[in-house]
Amino acid sequence: MKSIFTTLKKAAPAAAFTLAMAGGAALQSCSSGPGEGSATAAGVASDAAQAVYVAPGKHDEYYSFLSGGFNGQMSVYGLPSGRLLKIMPVFTQHAENGYGYSEESKAMLMTSHGFVPWDDLHHPKLSRTNGMTDGRWLFANGNNTPRVARVDLSTFETVEIMEIPNSAGNHCSPYPTDNNEYVIAGTRFSVPLDMKGGTADVSMDEYKDKFRGSISFIKVDPEKGDMDLDFQILVPGFDYDLANGGKGPSSDWVFFTTYNTERSGTLKELGASQNDRDYLAAVNWKLAAKYAAEGKAKEMPAYYYHNKMDKDSHIAKSTIKKSVRYLLPEDCPGMMYLIPAPKSPHGIDVDPSGEHMVVSGKLAATIPVFSFSKMQDAIKNKEFDGEINGIPVFKYESVLKAEVKEPGLGPLHTEFDGKGNAYTSMFVSSEIVKWKLSDFTVVDRMPVYYSVGHLMIPGGDTHTPDGKYLVAMNKITKDRYLPTGPELSHSAQLIDISGEKMRMLLDFPTVAEPHYAQAIKAEKVAPNSVKFYDLAKNKHPHAVKKEADASVTREGNVVRVKMTAIRSHMTPDNIEGVQVGDTVLFHVTNLEQDWDVPHGFAVMGANNAETLIMPGATQTLKWVPKKEGVYPFYCTDFCSALHQEMQGYIRVSPKGSKTPIAFSTGKKKQNIPGTASAK
Amino acid sequence: MKSIFTTLKKAAPAAAFTLAMAGGAALQSCSSGPGEGSATAAGVASDAAQAVYVAPGKHDEYYSFLSGGFNGQMSVYGLPSGRLLKIMPVFTQHAENGYGYSEESKAMLMTSHGFVPWDDLHHPKLSRTNGMTDGRWLFANGNNTPRVARVDLSTFETVEIMEIPNSAGNHCSPYPTDNNEYVIAGTRFSVPLDMKGGTADVSMDEYKDKFRGSISFIKVDPEKGDMDLDFQILVPGFDYDLANGGKGPSSDWVFFTTYNTERSGTLKELGASQNDRDYLAAVNWKLAAKYAAEGKAKEMPAYYYHNKMDKDSHIAKSTIKKSVRYLLPEDCPGMMYLIPAPKSPHGIDVDPSGEHMVVSGKLAATIPVFSFSKMQDAIKNKEFDGEINGIPVFKYESVLKAEVKEPGLGPLHTEFDGKGNAYTSMFVSSEIVKWKLSDFTVVDRMPVYYSVGHLMIPGGDTHTPDGKYLVAMNKITKDRYLPTGPELSHSAQLIDISGEKMRMLLDFPTVAEPHYAQAIKAEKVAPNSVKFYDLAKNKHPHAVKKEADASVTREGNVVRVKMTAIRSHMTPDNIEGVQVGDTVLFHVTNLEQDWDVPHGFAVMGANNAETLIMPGATQTLKWVPKKEGVYPFYCTDFCSALHQEMQGYIRVSPKGSKTPIAFSTGKKKQNIPGTASAK
Repeated sequence: MKSIFTTLKKAAPAAAFTLAMAGGAALQSCSSGPGEGSATAAGVASDAAQAVYVAPGKHDEYYSFLSGGFNGQMSVYGLPSGRLLKIMPVFTQHAENGYGYSEESKAMLMTSHGFVPWDDLHHPKLSRTNGMTDGRWLFANGNNTPRVARVDLSTFETVEIMEIPNSAGNHCSPYPTDNNEYVIAGTRFSVPLDMKGGTADVSMDEYKDKFRGSISFIKVDPEKGDMDLDFQILVPGFDYDLANGGKGPSSDWVFFTTYNTERSGTLKELGASQNDRDYLAAVNWKLAAKYAAEGKAKEMPAYYYHNKMDKDSHIAKSTIKKSVRYLLPEDCPGMMYLIPAPKSPHGIDVDPSGEHMVVSGKLAATIPVFSFSKMQDAIKNKEFDGEINGIPVFKYESVLKAEVKEPGLGPLHTEFDGKGNAYTSMFVSSEIVKWKLSDFTVVDRMPVYYSVGHLMIPGGDTHTPDGKYLVAMNKITKDRYLPTGPELSHSAQLIDISGEKMRMLLDFPTVAEPHYAQAIKAEKVAPNSVKFYDLAKNKHPHAVKKEADASVTREGNVVRVKMTAIRSHMTPDNIEGVQVGDTVLFHVTNLEQDWDVPHGFAVMGANNAETLIMPGATQTLKWVPKKEGVYPFYCTDFCSALHQEMQGYIRVSPKGSKTPIAFSTGKKKQNIPGTASAK
Repeated sequence: MKSIFTTLKKAAPAAAFTLAMAGGAALQSCSSGPGEGSATAAGVASDAAQAVYVAPGKHDEYYSFLSGGFNGQMSVYGLPSGRLLKIMPVFTQHAENGYGYSEESKAMLMTSHGFVPWDDLHHPKLSRTNGMTDGRWLFANGNNTPRVARVDLSTFETVEIMEIPNSAGNHCSPYPTDNNEYVIAGTRFSVPLDMKGGTADVSMDEYKDKFRGSISFIKVDPEKGDMDLDFQILVPGFDYDLANGGKGPSSDWVFFTTYNTERSGTLKELGASQNDRDYLAAVNWKLAAKYAAEGKAKEMPAYYYHNKMDKDSHIAKSTIKKSVRYLLPEDCPGMMYLIPAPKSPHGIDVDPSGEHMVVSGKLAATIPVFSFSKMQDAIKNKEFDGEINGIPVFKYESVLKAEVKEPGLGPLHTEFDGKGNAYTSMFVSSEIVKWKLSDFTVVDRMPVYYSVGHLMIPGGDTHTPDGKYLVAMNKITKDRYLPTGPELSHSAQLIDISGEKMRMLLDFPTVAEPHYAQAIKAEKVAPNSVKFYDLAKNKHPHAVKKEADASVTREGNVVRVKMTAIRSHMTPDNIEGVQVGDTVLFHVTNLEQDWDVPHGFAVMGANNAETLIMPGATQTLKWVPKKEGVYPFYCTDFCSALHQEMQGYIRVSPKGSKTPIAFSTGKKKQNIPGTASAK
């Protein structure tokens, strides 16, 4: 194990750095008050109104998927209207539809740490076909308890979550290759690996010697989308920040920014800001896969969860994985290189041609643009300046193409319009800066309010962006909307980038904190959208497909209610014979076979949420009654003129009561003497 | 107890009724496809775009508060933009800010049934001064496990939740009187009361004899807003649907619609639709309060929770209430009357003059308008047709003013514009119908998409409505937006009602299911909005107000971390000496004293959400580590250029380890030998 913790050979000298600029200017940018960007004239504002207005009954042009950050979900916004079309739960419990509360969905949130009902979702990434977004799936990372999720865009449901071992903070994740051969996920924090997939009980004093990072390669089934962790690369003990896949000539590669190459275990604000340069890590994923396939991968024991929603039963099931394969860079020549990059770089973005790797150093005064072709030459010519863990470090100049001069303060991320222009977000100076890839000169600036983090152009991370709109995702909101107390929504801004000059169109608030977004033309997703589930194909073991099959049975202390819901009644709607302390499982099947007729189910006093059942599906609500009495249950989603009448009662008797299990709807009452008495 | 279950004397004969119309027409209305209401011409659409556009940096004119229905929260939308400004958790756990997960907020969701992390929030109601909304508080009902909540509109936080005994489904709730003397809350479902505040273990066969409803009167402190359940009225075993307070001459009264006066315990779809007429219940709340004060109220034992957020510590505390006072209508002459109303009435809305009580019978062909002055005369002249539980039943004609003819199909709710017009939502025929209060004739119709439920005009339920906009809250969405799989957002529509004809402006999707809304001019709320909390006034017992006071101490198996957060570090950021199975309490104080600088806190693998800490506040995250190792923690809300560096590590050793408690930031490391070894 010792061999993987080799000493860091510094490729760039340490230098003192003052933080005053970064913190001070960020605040200053907020004191400039509200503004309209370049849209100051009334005529321009009028045009903007038309540009974002989607008349009642008309549809938006794009789906955009904004991550929810610390709310652990993703949101679907229509563009250009900025309207929130849907909140999709991924890593968090969601009362609206019972995700994480219903018996069917709980397993989705299982991890090696137990049930973890939250994560910090940063980066939505659409699946790809030949390097273009295809609208089939949406991948997303859990940044806290390392996980990667997959949403099926035919149903807009989270259908799979894969936990990542040997990782702590899964930030530079998930980055799909051109045909989703891999979804690639890098650790944010390095930790002392116990070589059993977890972390070791080690003192923080041993950071420099014992802490290590990992990059994970998750295979994706090309037809079904199912994920499987294929192998990992164990990498030096830096912090890994963001990643981006190559394109065209560089499409076998994936790039990662790093910080804390100082490997400070404390006060990173200062400790991780000592070096003038950290690194951009370049990994040849195709070669890595080849090494792994050809026996260079070792195996270690591990323990991590893989959770999948079964398509037929709509029940999530967990599989526990017991080992993981890993590669060491020192064993795999040509697989990984380090490029010195200005201090504490954040975003790495590869332009549509695949030639330019743009690195945004959040504390840097210029934006370096590295050249993929120069990198290939530098590999051939061995233009290295030392190595770290057997990973060659390039000479800065040998791979540098140009530096964008005076771009603004605090560059974070860059996207592209496919027309030869790059757009970089400037956190500290609160602006979007447009610059030309041909000569690296700045050609336009648009103030944004305030302190922009990520930005997104539909397809802006592919080889053929759709350069019509840009969405700026701002970190500070302050006075942009009517105040809502100390806690404010974050804010996005929609900018028209179709012309030479950027044009501010719209401010719209977002759910929690979007850390990135993806957008795609509506026609790539909408035609495949499922309207309801086929009841005939419902394979839930406790589904009942007609009212006559509804039942209530006792199995020891478990009372199983197989219920149907259809406008405007539930069957059964009178249940007796339940006792205090029983586990009551309401399996509710929605018999409707039409679009947009969900039924909800709730019972008074349950220590649980409700569950929302789509047409043709079955969902289960668990309830352990604590007190005797009569408890109403009812449909929670207004479904018809007689929705208020769609309800029933369940009677709870004291423990040991002789009241037999019985149920009815209308006049038909069934007593089931055989199962009458509780165990 | 027997005396309160007197026999129902029917005031109107039962009649057969076919349900075909209601269900069939609701579906039919959805097949008409997308449309723009009356805004068909391009010029009109262009005007609509201008009418709803709020330019970047400008503010909306109104706050609107839409209930989240089965998502248990309320949402704040700006009008006319339709932008979602904030989601406010009330009865549900909320990962975004840790509500219901943090130690400070858990008690808010405690009930007599234990921790109930969900409810079905239907009706937001703004507090009032002299009958006008004053922007101080927002009340809301929990429809499932009966509760009433109060949101403080200076902070937009839920600060109080009062459980309601003797209730099952708290639907016609919460209705404040002119000066919030009472917030009034009626049960939806009748249940067999056990006369101890709960329900009794009684067979459903005994519905007619044993089931009973209740109306609760919650006192509100005029200065602080604190709620207290003063007394209840035990009422006949109907279902109670909606309520509305009187105005002007009728302001001492509150009115309730009822259904299932047939008192069917099963298949209510049919069983509760037998009678041609159910009732509008009229209650003189001022007289009820007088009776209660003068000793007519009896007391019964009860057990229910009253949860309040302490203003100084920001810690929610529960008080268990042990009794409740109740009145019986038969003991209190003049307190309560029943008005026959067309079958299964839903909405009851009193016009701004206080003279007209408009009842929307969802299965009725006309809208009856009752007269308050006629009702006063009928009381004097004893124009009764029998009684129920000692409650006189009026003759229909004696209180009827007029019937609105041919209003449309499936009338549900009515609001008013203060200019002599009423607007009624038609669920089945999917339209808003405008009619005149002077002669009860229909003057305009606006199709809405689809199946409208509630509608809202700012101040439309007060004596002086602000008749500029109307929001239609529609129950069925189908093709109104880009499709998002089987589960679709509900949809609202904004209509301009300033002119003679209604003008459709905008469709906007909503969070879960809004069952009602309130709106208020921004200037009544915004000036009082708190920007951050005063650190000096923070009375949290585990707050630390400067970094030097940060500490880690062991108390048996509890490790208490008193941590500070300020851009861009946490103190301490290295913690050792924690053992597997310890309960670690991270008390994090945000030292910032500026607007919009929250910090978030999360630790990897916690079986919990993160917590979001506003400037000056303290929040606590509980974590019980299951495995040894080193766990990163970090700030989850991007706060500065060095946000990514704002993190630390906590080391977990095996149970019984001799590693002492130690913590540090930077070079300073404190070992605390006195608390070194675990118990």
